[in-house]
Amino acid sequence: MVPVVGESLARYALSVKRKSGQIRVAAAQINPTVGDISGNCELILSYAKSALVAGAHLILFPEMIVTGYPVEDLALRSTFRNASKTAVVQLANDLSVQGVGELVCVVGYLEESENHKPQNAVAIIHRGEVLAKYIKHHLPNYGVFDEFRNFVAGSESLVFRYLGIDIGIAICEDIWKSQGPVSDLTARTPGLVLVPNGSPFERNKDDVRLSLVRRRAREIAAPLVYVNMTGGQDDLVFDGDSIVVSSEGELIARAPQFSDGLVVVDIEAKLGTSEPNLVISDEPIDSYKALTPGVAKRISEEEQIWNALVVGLRDYVKKNNFPSVITGMSGGIDSSLVMAIAADAIDAKNVYGVALPSRYSSEHSLADAAQCAKNIGLNYRVISIEPMVATFLQNLGLVGVAEENVQARVRGTTLMGLSNQEGHLVLANGNKSELSAGYSTLYGDAVGGFAPIKDLFKVDVWALAKWRNQRALELGQIPPIPENSISKEPSAELRPGQKDSDSLPEYEILDQILNIYIDNDGGLSGVLAAGFDEALARRVIQLVDRAEYKRRQYPPGTKISRRAFGKDRRLPITSGWREAF
Amino acid sequence: MVPVVGESLARYALSVKRKSGQIRVAAAQINPTVGDISGNCELILSYAKSALVAGAHLILFPEMIVTGYPVEDLALRSTFRNASKTAVVQLANDLSVQGVGELVCVVGYLEESENHKPQNAVAIIHRGEVLAKYIKHHLPNYGVFDEFRNFVAGSESLVFRYLGIDIGIAICEDIWKSQGPVSDLTARTPGLVLVPNGSPFERNKDDVRLSLVRRRAREIAAPLVYVNMTGGQDDLVFDGDSIVVSSEGELIARAPQFSDGLVVVDIEAKLGTSEPNLVISDEPIDSYKALTPGVAKRISEEEQIWNALVVGLRDYVKKNNFPSVITGMSGGIDSSLVMAIAADAIDAKNVYGVALPSRYSSEHSLADAAQCAKNIGLNYRVISIEPMVATFLQNLGLVGVAEENVQARVRGTTLMGLSNQEGHLVLANGNKSELSAGYSTLYGDAVGGFAPIKDLFKVDVWALAKWRNQRALELGQIPPIPENSISKEPSAELRPGQKDSDSLPEYEILDQILNIYIDNDGGLSGVLAAGFDEALARRVIQLVDRAEYKRRQYPPGTKISRRAFGKDRRLPITSGWREAF
Repeated sequence: MVPVVGESLARYALSVKRKSGQIRVAAAQINPTVGDISGNCELILSYAKSALVAGAHLILFPEMIVTGYPVEDLALRSTFRNASKTAVVQLANDLSVQGVGELVCVVGYLEESENHKPQNAVAIIHRGEVLAKYIKHHLPNYGVFDEFRNFVAGSESLVFRYLGIDIGIAICEDIWKSQGPVSDLTARTPGLVLVPNGSPFERNKDDVRLSLVRRRAREIAAPLVYVNMTGGQDDLVFDGDSIVVSSEGELIARAPQFSDGLVVVDIEAKLGTSEPNLVISDEPIDSYKALTPGVAKRISEEEQIWNALVVGLRDYVKKNNFPSVITGMSGGIDSSLVMAIAADAIDAKNVYGVALPSRYSSEHSLADAAQCAKNIGLNYRVISIEPMVATFLQNLGLVGVAEENVQARVRGTTLMGLSNQEGHLVLANGNKSELSAGYSTLYGDAVGGFAPIKDLFKVDVWALAKWRNQRALELGQIPPIPENSISKEPSAELRPGQKDSDSLPEYEILDQILNIYIDNDGGLSGVLAAGFDEALARRVIQLVDRAEYKRRQYPPGTKISRRAFGKDRRLPITSGWREAF
Repeated sequence: MVPVVGESLARYALSVKRKSGQIRVAAAQINPTVGDISGNCELILSYAKSALVAGAHLILFPEMIVTGYPVEDLALRSTFRNASKTAVVQLANDLSVQGVGELVCVVGYLEESENHKPQNAVAIIHRGEVLAKYIKHHLPNYGVFDEFRNFVAGSESLVFRYLGIDIGIAICEDIWKSQGPVSDLTARTPGLVLVPNGSPFERNKDDVRLSLVRRRAREIAAPLVYVNMTGGQDDLVFDGDSIVVSSEGELIARAPQFSDGLVVVDIEAKLGTSEPNLVISDEPIDSYKALTPGVAKRISEEEQIWNALVVGLRDYVKKNNFPSVITGMSGGIDSSLVMAIAADAIDAKNVYGVALPSRYSSEHSLADAAQCAKNIGLNYRVISIEPMVATFLQNLGLVGVAEENVQARVRGTTLMGLSNQEGHLVLANGNKSELSAGYSTLYGDAVGGFAPIKDLFKVDVWALAKWRNQRALELGQIPPIPENSISKEPSAELRPGQKDSDSLPEYEILDQILNIYIDNDGGLSGVLAAGFDEALARRVIQLVDRAEYKRRQYPPGTKISRRAFGKDRRLPITSGWREAF
């Protein structure tokens, strides 16, 4: 037999000795903070250590874990790019110095092209060095994403050999299209594919992810590890839901949504299948007893949404360093639900509710607010707005809608005053139905730094309230939301006997029309095609179109639908387009 | 000689008879309204008639004149795309029926690709028919532009022959890059190039346009007609500044900025220079006496900015159907300047000023506010906020910053009450220095539907006030802004003896730092490189970074700088990035 040397020897050895080898991959489903580069690097170090303890050979982190995601126009700032690049080099060194150098770390960060343009990148780190990088190819620029604005695209695929396994990389959107990285990797026949993601939660999106991941694994004919981040970032929530599938697309492991942790999985992969750009190690390791992978049980849609709202609020509060939250409690369903979310997010002891009754507030409003506060165990007080409202009305002579709005604005000013005095974050309680129809008062009930349920239609508000109460019963706890808040007819109580239904269609109808017009951008013809009355359809669309200026000044809040207000739906305020006028 | 027929005959005739021919082009520098398709088509018809009367052979309209520009996510709605496409067909018919069918009309509109994606397009209309279309190739997706989000790109160039002249088309961004349409047209050697634009005003941008247009005309070796729209659209203002240059890049005609009208110019162009996609007419017309083209005199930078602010406010008011505006008058420079802009925009009789004194307001505040109101001739009243503030303080026990903010919020609620009662649009008076540093009260002085000077640094506020007063003197009018408002030290007057300089550096220094950090995205290192004190630089950057949540809820206002707050600068609220902490 002719002796062969170096790399060729290793390849030869592979080809005669074994067809496949093992690798223990740790997928870190974790929660970075946008911009907090040093904090994120500490998080990476800590998870790398855990992965090593768990016997992993490689750890995969989510997209842009070093900088957090999305960084928006921070990507355009050279000082920020430099900080990210420097941090990755420092991180490689720290990993090595702290005894984690043998672990291969696959870390997303913000890179810079040769002509100083920002790039969404992944670094392959081993033994204190950044050995290779991959640049994201497909840049999403729709919905909430502005990546064509913030990054320039890469064009090269990357395959590196480690433990004899040829490992390919793709980043998030890269696997949502057949051309580019997917076809490149398919052609290069890697033995394993790693996909870091920053994929925000959306109702029903999880099943789309699984079927996509399965299909790509089959196409590329390699096992695929998909890791997604957790946590909230302004109006986005990342739900994790990391997935590992075999080359046949079988689900091997799946992480629970909305939960931080390491998915550690042993993967059997073919050896030496490609021509790698980089060889870290050619030798497969001796075979070992594989761990039994876990597949998290799927949770219900209500629980997913609830968790998204809780995480979204929690991270806005914590990442912005607020000690507590405050809101006005009307005894209605919206503020009660927001308080229940807040208590689940940051503990009832940090939640402050204020009943702000006026002359038009009914008996049950105060009673229901007090009951909700008691159920939840939050900090509660009552402040009558009558003296302030009366002084405004006396001095300005306001009547009608102007009088109604003064009540809402006195409430807003009161809450902001308490916020300024006591340091709480003010929560706005508006739901998506109200925001759509403009059924809110600017600088009144719209006051707040965060709006937890702004992307929840009223019918979903009711459904979630019932779900949360039921969950409490199942756990032997007191249901947070008073039954009366759920069952009574909605009213803003800004004039005697006022009901929402004086101004709006019944929510069961309204929300269906809004779903077509807003979430599906169906236009008037889409609403009519679904069989709704034309006059009603026109009226609802007019309400929506005329309220754009109000939405523009509304606080951010957690996106849960396919089209939330904010970055997801960018419409002119000044517009002569009259779909329905 | 061999006889030739049809098109070939015509070409032969051209080549032996004449080398060049004339064409009278009308460039319509006009102001569409986004979404008002029928209104815009009426405007097109009316200008086409004027062009015919002026003897023009062709009329060129700005980018997307049929829909207005930018339409943002309206482009994603199929009902809107259909309305645009239908309108262009109807427009072609209407032009013909109304006797303007002989005029070639070049009209921008929203088209749809075969797979139903939105496209930024131009139609060539003649004798009642849409003869050809061109799809924009380069889609700007930076700054205020989201075209990669809203459109798909075209890839085909278009040259049509008319009066024997081969006329090429490019749309706006198409001529800002050398590859694509510019190189395609250069290769196709047209005799004339038409460029419709939607190019927003920015300080000093006009000279960039002229030099670009000159360079492209020389490269393509053809005369070039550049037409831009006028008017305001939310935070953008289009300043016109339409330009015609010769194939040598000489300036032939230039329209005045901020002014609607037709530029009618006779162009001598080479005949039969290309292989056109479409022949409208092969025959050159008999030569005629050319008009003497006009070249508008350039106006000063102050006048440009003033006009931009006036047009931006005027169009927001008019296009959103407000009868009038209202704001709080403190006697300070900001509110005085805003009132002067408002009076120039919509006439003093539609402008309402309210002095809202508190116990901390100085004598001169009321006197200066009254003087400003008198100078301008606007509707003026005085409402003491003391009773409302006292009631809040008594009932809530607020002190310190909370007390200061209550004053500002009582003012905001008062103005909104008057707005609800009387129908005025509320104007917010904040300038860019205040917005940058967060030196404003949410739901207080930040209240408003539009913020005319939000993109003007304080030093520019002073400069513009002086310029406007000087202009009044030149015109023999009363200067609108009291000298004392210009010369006195700025104060928010929310506590005794308060001055802006208690909380902020001197504006002359602050604005230079802000210009580096915000307008040029220079980061801390950029500020230090310019020689500023490090402690001061860090303090200013901290103020800016911490105020992002306030800016997010601030009303829209006219962009005049290279980087305005809003669509131009998209940063996360939740951010651990500490450039300077």
